[in-house]
Amino acid sequence: MELWLIGIGTGNPDHLTLQAVKAINGADLILIPRKGEEKADLADLRRAICAEMLTNPRTILSEFDLPVRAAEGDYLNGVADWHDAIAESWRAAIGRHPQAMKVALLIWGDPALYDSSLRIAERLARHVDLSVHVVPGIMSPQALTAAHGVPMNQLGAPFLVTTGRRLRDHGWPDGVDTLLVMLDGECSFQTLKPDGISIWWGAYLGMPQQIVDAGPLAETGPGIVAARKVARARHGWIMDIYLLRRGPGTGMPGQGSAAGAGP
Amino acid sequence: MELWLIGIGTGNPDHLTLQAVKAINGADLILIPRKGEEKADLADLRRAICAEMLTNPRTILSEFDLPVRAAEGDYLNGVADWHDAIAESWRAAIGRHPQAMKVALLIWGDPALYDSSLRIAERLARHVDLSVHVVPGIMSPQALTAAHGVPMNQLGAPFLVTTGRRLRDHGWPDGVDTLLVMLDGECSFQTLKPDGISIWWGAYLGMPQQIVDAGPLAETGPGIVAARKVARARHGWIMDIYLLRRGPGTGMPGQGSAAGAGP
Repeated sequence: MELWLIGIGTGNPDHLTLQAVKAINGADLILIPRKGEEKADLADLRRAICAEMLTNPRTILSEFDLPVRAAEGDYLNGVADWHDAIAESWRAAIGRHPQAMKVALLIWGDPALYDSSLRIAERLARHVDLSVHVVPGIMSPQALTAAHGVPMNQLGAPFLVTTGRRLRDHGWPDGVDTLLVMLDGECSFQTLKPDGISIWWGAYLGMPQQIVDAGPLAETGPGIVAARKVARARHGWIMDIYLLRRGPGTGMPGQGSAAGAGP
Repeated sequence: MELWLIGIGTGNPDHLTLQAVKAINGADLILIPRKGEEKADLADLRRAICAEMLTNPRTILSEFDLPVRAAEGDYLNGVADWHDAIAESWRAAIGRHPQAMKVALLIWGDPALYDSSLRIAERLARHVDLSVHVVPGIMSPQALTAAHGVPMNQLGAPFLVTTGRRLRDHGWPDGVDTLLVMLDGECSFQTLKPDGISIWWGAYLGMPQQIVDAGPLAETGPGIVAARKVARARHGWIMDIYLLRRGPGTGMPGQGSAAGAGP
């Protein structure tokens, strides 16, 4: 069996690559996970993409329920158990269509970036004979930097992709002046001394409800915290990301480079 | 005037997003830089993409010569002068088509990652009234991890995107167990003590001549150095990238996750 993990971008159907469109239409079976009401928008997006892009009449769409993650206990063990349970739910969903040789899942962003599908596929491979195929997709760091017209890196310089939790627990790491912060439910930039730091923030990147803001952290941070709270209450969920840069020449967008291509 | 910087991925025309196809067809003028014979394949790729994707009969394609970078002198000043010269060449090329309101450039990978087009656009904006629009594109870290079926990050962990020069000059940085190394003409992983490090390497990612290799650095490194030399001699140029991961559980591809979607 072939398992295709297809990156679909961050919510703008136009983020799909031609390779992704071909892979969707090459699948015998597309599994659509249901994640509960909170992120219903994401399941809706997958349905909308299939409705718009799928022209192969033989492709079967099959929705299935994802297991719920245990809220208490050790974090990493909890995640491992959860991934085991998801692998089992994939196996059960695939088992209902034994004729399917090519099975696809549509992965938010890119399957290689802060996504568990490759780890779950490894678990599935212990029980099912399969080859895994990955189709890269536009991921949130790209949607963010495109929206702001700002480069990820300064000239010849490195940058760190990290999480809100790491920023809270370890502060700004040594040796790097640019951070891309993901998976941050708590606006962890508030734990930094803001002087000399600039921020480029975005939420719902690529989607109609996209919001962006940028500026010196000291001035812009509080507004982002407030905007995030309002947006989360309005939509019931939020996904956001930000780039932080410190030091002189932070590359704040000047005239003419602030406009992105929009969602 | 609108300046559209359109990410086109790493050489596989199927890396194009639907957004990129629309942006190409929305342009009045597409500028195709000529870079000399060494990287003629890249100019050819841009021509091929336009030939295949462009359906707007009013879009003008215009080739222009890029200035050559001064080989000696201070690196950063040399780059700044070179970017000034490129901005001037863009300005001259655009000036030959004064009726063009939407001007596009096709950018290898993503305009936000180790690419100078945003910095050059900022220079151009000092002389021309323009708004910059960025269309993200599949970039080499994504093509690499997709080809290997390996995640960029370990669970909840950060990773550093950096250059060969930095790896040579500063060694393995503290606080991070995964490095994505770009712009490395010298296989700088050879400067590391290889014990406990795994490598996932790829060259010409997404193109028909794609080569990949992966394994423990001590065993795999010398073969990569040799393969790179042979490939560079054969094709006249090479672009490669690699991911390094250290420590236990480096996530070497197990059965079933080694196969990528191919070029």
